[in-house]
Amino acid sequence: MAISAAETAGPPGPSGSGSLGSLGEFGLIRALAARMPAGPLTSIGIGDDSAVLAAPSGSVVAAVDMLIEGRHFLRSWSSGRDVGVKAAARGLADIAAMGAVPTALLVAFAAPSSLPASWALDLASGVASEAERAGAGVVGGDTASADSVLVSVTALGELRELNELRELNDMSDMSPVRRSGAREGDVVAVCGALGHSAAGHALLSAGLREPGSLVAAHLRPAPPYDAGPEAARLGATAMIDVSDGLLADLGHIAAASGVTIDVSSAALVPPDDAPLWRAAAQTPLSSRTDSGDSSRPQLLHWILAGGEDHALVATFPPDVALPERWRVIGTVGPAASGDGVTVDGERYSGLPGWQHFR
Amino acid sequence: MAISAAETAGPPGPSGSGSLGSLGEFGLIRALAARMPAGPLTSIGIGDDSAVLAAPSGSVVAAVDMLIEGRHFLRSWSSGRDVGVKAAARGLADIAAMGAVPTALLVAFAAPSSLPASWALDLASGVASEAERAGAGVVGGDTASADSVLVSVTALGELRELNELRELNDMSDMSPVRRSGAREGDVVAVCGALGHSAAGHALLSAGLREPGSLVAAHLRPAPPYDAGPEAARLGATAMIDVSDGLLADLGHIAAASGVTIDVSSAALVPPDDAPLWRAAAQTPLSSRTDSGDSSRPQLLHWILAGGEDHALVATFPPDVALPERWRVIGTVGPAASGDGVTVDGERYSGLPGWQHFR
Repeated sequence: MAISAAETAGPPGPSGSGSLGSLGEFGLIRALAARMPAGPLTSIGIGDDSAVLAAPSGSVVAAVDMLIEGRHFLRSWSSGRDVGVKAAARGLADIAAMGAVPTALLVAFAAPSSLPASWALDLASGVASEAERAGAGVVGGDTASADSVLVSVTALGELRELNELRELNDMSDMSPVRRSGAREGDVVAVCGALGHSAAGHALLSAGLREPGSLVAAHLRPAPPYDAGPEAARLGATAMIDVSDGLLADLGHIAAASGVTIDVSSAALVPPDDAPLWRAAAQTPLSSRTDSGDSSRPQLLHWILAGGEDHALVATFPPDVALPERWRVIGTVGPAASGDGVTVDGERYSGLPGWQHFR
Repeated sequence: MAISAAETAGPPGPSGSGSLGSLGEFGLIRALAARMPAGPLTSIGIGDDSAVLAAPSGSVVAAVDMLIEGRHFLRSWSSGRDVGVKAAARGLADIAAMGAVPTALLVAFAAPSSLPASWALDLASGVASEAERAGAGVVGGDTASADSVLVSVTALGELRELNELRELNDMSDMSPVRRSGAREGDVVAVCGALGHSAAGHALLSAGLREPGSLVAAHLRPAPPYDAGPEAARLGATAMIDVSDGLLADLGHIAAASGVTIDVSSAALVPPDDAPLWRAAAQTPLSSRTDSGDSSRPQLLHWILAGGEDHALVATFPPDVALPERWRVIGTVGPAASGDGVTVDGERYSGLPGWQHFR
């Protein structure tokens, strides 16, 4: 059942004491709905059979993403707020990766009736705060009981910024940035964190909670949403958000564009990211069998193979003037047989035990 | 992870033998994606970070709905195709209930790795066929493993038919049909089946599979999608799809509109619906304690309290000329204290054991 007007009417939401079962479905819905931002383009939000949003560009961008307890998160690691932020961020990043502006989320939420109501309300707060950070509303949802916690987020977006910039010149140019437009000679640049989420995961797996900034990066990724439309304005030829890992996601661009991509380890490894170096030095990973200093290989591996930071990586024409937050990390080469993505000109062999993404 | 280009590239989908685990996530995604209709407004479908759809009316209608194994369906009753049809129908009906035309679905699907791959592919076929029946595409999705089967469907729609009809007269009139517009003196009319899904559920609960049309109505509801935009063109003042039950859903309209609604049992009980009468006569419900003929009360109860048929019920100005498939079943009265919806002028007391929806 969709969230309805009758269900959202009524007394203010509860304080969150007790379980979801004692709160009841309608009580839960009221409490969740009360926490949600409306959004800039919403003409009908929560409270009818469907939401209605303005689409001033004449098109709509849409993606869906799912988080499942035990597969994507653990309640022993993540608070409700963490899960709400992460669920929202994953969907919103898919919108930004098209060069679009996130406008709205719809959230399907299922949980056991024994779940503390406060946990569900924290999740709602997390969804709401990340939607607000992206400038989006939360316009609809559905709730149900289930054996474990599950959140499915649909994100909607708008190609409006592109329109405003380009409509005087070329109406046909108001297009989203796909994965398939990278061209030989383009530069590859990234905006946002790389390897932080993987480092945070390694810390948590080792029972560590410090450096806290990396643990936070794993639990609550913070994609740079506005860098998506910025890249589109700058003429990005292809773009993706780093969810599976930099090599894997650049592999998607290489395959879709019919090109090869080479990245530079020197450009990727940040010499002055103290928390990342500290995490690499202190996590006792079984795969680190090097006798010498294995911090750099570990750190590079997180950057190349770790996902879930939801940084944006894009290809640009070589003469582009990039703002400082876009770091050039590689170049686009011609199509070739063999691996689509290389590191310092070679196939990445990874740490011992590393399964190459191909 | 959203369904991506690299994942959908590759050899044709498998035949569906084996389990999901043996098929693998990317194999599953390829197989699912291959079964999906593109849709009339889709400019970028499955295969990038997000889908992009045209929105010629300048707005987009959106709703999300979730089906969970053990809560909304049983695999012992429902085939994969049944679940796919039902999941799609629930989302699509929410779009039609706004007077909008369904244009696209995004589907999040989770299942145990032990699930037969053929079951998942049947589900995909069910989603695809119901989307096609509604004229919509399937433009995105997400897959994950979980302990039980779960489907979350986001439906998108367009207010285009309204535009085409009305833009020459009054641009501001291109509005969706909400729950809140019913006015005293309006007539209440319904398009589509009522009570069929509840009768089918009663049959299945009694271990019966006949009349098959009613069992099918429970397993695979068939909302009259095009009746939604039709009602909008006819001037419907309020509309909802019957998902919770006719009384409950009319209660949502009455509450949102600040009116009362009275329905006529004589108008609701179809004298010549032979399967429905047969089902009422043969299901041994414990609640039927009447000594006389209890078929009519049972049948009326299914019609008033049974949900999930996803018929459309709407209010219209009294002078409207309705097409034959819209059956007038009641009238809208002034706001009053007490129950918002009555049957033959009285509060519905239901069958023994019936919990009133208030």
